[in-house]
Amino acid sequence: MRLLLIHSDYIEYEAQKKTAMAEEDILGKDSLNDAITAFCAVESIDEEDLSDVVSQAAAEILATAEKVNAERVMIYPYAHLSNDLATPDRAVAALKALESALSERIEVKRAPFGWYKSFKLSCKGHPLSELSRTIVPGGADAPAKKEVSREWFVL
Amino acid sequence: MRLLLIHSDYIEYEAQKKTAMAEEDILGKDSLNDAITAFCAVESIDEEDLSDVVSQAAAEILATAEKVNAERVMIYPYAHLSNDLATPDRAVAALKALESALSERIEVKRAPFGWYKSFKLSCKGHPLSELSRTIVPGGADAPAKKEVSREWFVL
Ligand SMILES: [Mg+2]
Repeated sequence: MRLLLIHSDYIEYEAQKKTAMAEEDILGKDSLNDAITAFCAVESIDEEDLSDVVSQAAAEILATAEKVNAERVMIYPYAHLSNDLATPDRAVAALKALESALSERIEVKRAPFGWYKSFKLSCKGHPLSELSRTIVPGGADAPAKKEVSREWFVL
Repeated sequence: MRLLLIHSDYIEYEAQKKTAMAEEDILGKDSLNDAITAFCAVESIDEEDLSDVVSQAAAEILATAEKVNAERVMIYPYAHLSNDLATPDRAVAALKALESALSERIEVKRAPFGWYKSFKLSCKGHPLSELSRTIVPGGADAPAKKEVSREWFVL
């Protein structure tokens, strides 16, 4: 899973148009203030152990939220972060599981998968306000593979 | 070069803090309305032929601007799009060359490299408003390698 985490003054979205893989029964419009916007791309390799990838992603997002003192998370599906995506049904399952895992610890909303959406975002711009991470299966119980997880980038 | 092109109602940035690789003599704050925001990551492979990558990138950005009827481009350095970045001096050279190439055809601004920046962005949300592309050296005069360029993604 590729993650791009942006500490945001606000994130707002509005679903505009379905794609062929549009999730049904969605909230068409929503927003959060002072939140981590978690742009997520679920990758094909993640299908090897979706639940492991989801728990690693949840841990990363929570650690970042704590570090920057953010109390809310907007999960935002973002296929543009990867060239090797999971199938849409697996991606939606992972994003729902991520929402569920985070909801035990923090306020969380999730933008719908498979819709063209307009959005407005304000990135705070402090040194920890933009972080990216690649997560692969085999984190917690396979430390050797964990090293594939990549370092944070700045700018 | 990785490109993420967002057809934006507005893009505004403000430089907040230098990193170790900060460009000097910058415009600390700027904005554009109804523009293509071109998030760019210059990659190490691009160093094999920077000028080729720059001309391919300029062509992609111009084609997209024409398609969506945008008359302005904000070049926005965005290292988070790649795990294998060019050296900072090559990246700045490429981004300046891209600015120069685009300026012959369209109004263009460039956000500074190597600064932590706050930004505000509004993505229009129509089907062509978010496009990503990976460009590699060897486009125009080496069609065989061109196939490495990847397809547009939706959502
Ligand atoms: Mg496991």
